[in-house]
Formats: sequence, structure tokens, C-alpha cells
Amino acid sequence: MKKRLGPAERLYPMPCALVVGGTLEKPAGLAVAWINVVSSTPPTIAMGLRESRNTLAAIRETNSFTVNIPSAARVDEFDFFGLSNGAKTDKFAESGLSVARGAMVEAPIVVECPFNIECRVIQEVPIGSYRLVLGEIVETHADVSILKEPEGDLVNMELLDPLVYIAGMREYRRLGEKVADAYTAGKRFVSPDAQ
Amino acid sequence: MKKRLGPAERLYPMPCALVVGGTLEKPAGLAVAWINVVSSTPPTIAMGLRESRNTLAAIRETNSFTVNIPSAARVDEFDFFGLSNGAKTDKFAESGLSVARGAMVEAPIVVECPFNIECRVIQEVPIGSYRLVLGEIVETHADVSILKEPEGDLVNMELLDPLVYIAGMREYRRLGEKVADAYTAGKRFVSPDAQ
Repeated sequence: MKKRLGPAERLYPMPCALVVGGTLEKPAGLAVAWINVVSSTPPTIAMGLRESRNTLAAIRETNSFTVNIPSAARVDEFDFFGLSNGAKTDKFAESGLSVARGAMVEAPIVVECPFNIECRVIQEVPIGSYRLVLGEIVETHADVSILKEPEGDLVNMELLDPLVYIAGMREYRRLGEKVADAYTAGKRFVSPDAQ
Repeated sequence: MKKRLGPAERLYPMPCALVVGGTLEKPAGLAVAWINVVSSTPPTIAMGLRESRNTLAAIRETNSFTVNIPSAARVDEFDFFGLSNGAKTDKFAESGLSVARGAMVEAPIVVECPFNIECRVIQEVPIGSYRLVLGEIVETHADVSILKEPEGDLVNMELLDPLVYIAGMREYRRLGEKVADAYTAGKRFVSPDAQ
């Protein structure tokens, strides 16, 4: 039996990304769960930010941002970037996270996050008091230590150990065990006629 | 040491949602990982769909869609909705999944998915050969059996047991254990002055 729960902003699960705008000298960062890839032509990320966010103003300054994936070991730092206010606090100084120059855009990447994405803003769409920010992915970086093979581009999930955010419950979780391979598990339903 | 991996459409992790358009009599569904909440004013979902998708045409017919979260036990069915072609296959008949009328929109919900979101399309944004579809969340439903408390609106993650998609590796995973509480773990970095 299903129960109606009302029009809540819930989807399970969500990623945990440290989004950074501004410059190497003056970065501004925020914990973001409302973010995902939405296109591959070109590779594009979409995220929803409250219009009032300092980080959004910093993103507009250089028309760029970075998306940095922390490991579960950095959950306290990540959470701090969500609960503190960049107008009153130097979030990087207080948490001990640091930034470095990326390769393609002015917004810097977070050194302590093992996976980093550089984005150039291509569009902003207003949705009430939020702004949907669309960014073209112009480069990605990974710590060599989390790659499956040093010469490849696949990331080992056990080594990246990314966080997952659970809306409503307001909790962070780890990834669990592998269930199945995509584009494979469903083949048992493919009828011989359709092949 | 960081390594540049190029402008790839990777973000870790992504959700696994069965998106359904069309009608109760003629539903069209698709496995979607490029989806998330992006606003709460009003509650809004954004997702990236290839322009050529049957499901996008079905969504346009009724200007509505539903987002249905399968449990890990339905991974084969979910994967089948991703690898098969709705123009050639009746995905619901082949996989055994079924639809029911929702409460607010014409697009039906998936009975076997324990969490369901009804959305009304508010905007489409073209990004190359993809369309970013924005939908206002007008209702959510959960199986009573997955609620933390029967009278509440919180979903028990162990009972929902949602899938997580890992891009690049092309694998489905479960959620792992809780790491920390959000809006709490980061308080240790808050200096007394800032409070």
C-alpha cells in the first residue's frame, strides 16, 4: 500500500560535492547535494544553488566553478562547508582544506578531494529563489592513487570512497557492495525476437 | 599527485531512477542516472535525456513524468529499461513491472518501485543532443512498508535499499553504512567567534 507524502524535494540517494568558485587567492566553497551530469554533448553539469549563496556570486565573478568529490574520511570538513557561512567564516582556513590552480578555468580545485571537475558556466536558469547553474565540463582530475590502473582513466570506488547524501534523514553514507553490472544484468529479459 | 583525465561526464555517485511518461494505458519508461533535485521553490527535479528518446516524446504528450526508485532486488528490471528500446519492446510486459494511476499527473507510477515522485514539466532546456527537462514535484508516494514510522514521512533507507550508479565502471551498488549526521559532523570546525 502506498502513502502520499506531499510534494517534497526528495530523491534517493544524492552525491556530495564540494563546489568552489572565485579564485586561487579568494576561493568560495559550498557543500552541494543537488548536482549531477545532464548531457554529454558537451559534457555538462547542472546544479541548484540558492540565489543568496556567496559561492554563486563567486562563480559569477570568473564564470567558472569546480566540483570536488571528498572521500568519506573528510565528512566533517564537507559538512562544515554546508553549515557555515562564507560571508562570516574563511571555510578553507577553519577546515584546513586547501586549493590549487586547475588546468582550464580560474576557479581552483580542492587539493584534499581525490576527484575534481572543472566547469565553465554556460547558462543560468532561475527557478524560484534558486538558480540552476549549467557548467560545461572542460577537464577532470583524479589523484593517481585512486585510479584502477595508473595508465587508465577509471576510478577505483573503494579508494575514492565517496559520500552519499540521504535527504530527509539528513545523513551521510558510504557506498555499499556491487550489485550488478550495468548494460548486462537486464539482458535476461531481452526476448530472442528483439535481438 | 593528480592526473588530468579529460572532459568526461563523470560524477560519483549517481542515483538510479525509472522515469515514466505517457499514460496508464501506454506508458513509456527509461532508466535514468542523470537526475536530481535542483530547487525547493517550488520543489523541482532536473534530468538530462537524449532528444531521440521515446520516453521524452511520451513525456511531452502529457507534459508530465514520474520518477520511481527501485530497490536493489529489481536491478535486473531497472537495467533492462536502460538497455532495451521502447520502440521495439514493451518494456513493462517483458520485465513484469506494472503501472498504476498517480494522484496528480497523467504519467503513471511504477507499482513495484517503493518510492515515487510525480512531476509536471515546467521547462525544457536544449543542451546539444540532450534536453534538460525540469519538472515540478507535485506529489511523492512511498510504500507504507518502507516508512520509518507509519505516521511519518521519513523513508527507512535499509528498507528502500536504493541503487547507486557508478559511471565509468558501469556498475550498480547498494548504499553502505552511515558515516555521520549532516549539519552536525562539521560543527567541530566552527570557531567560538563565529557562533
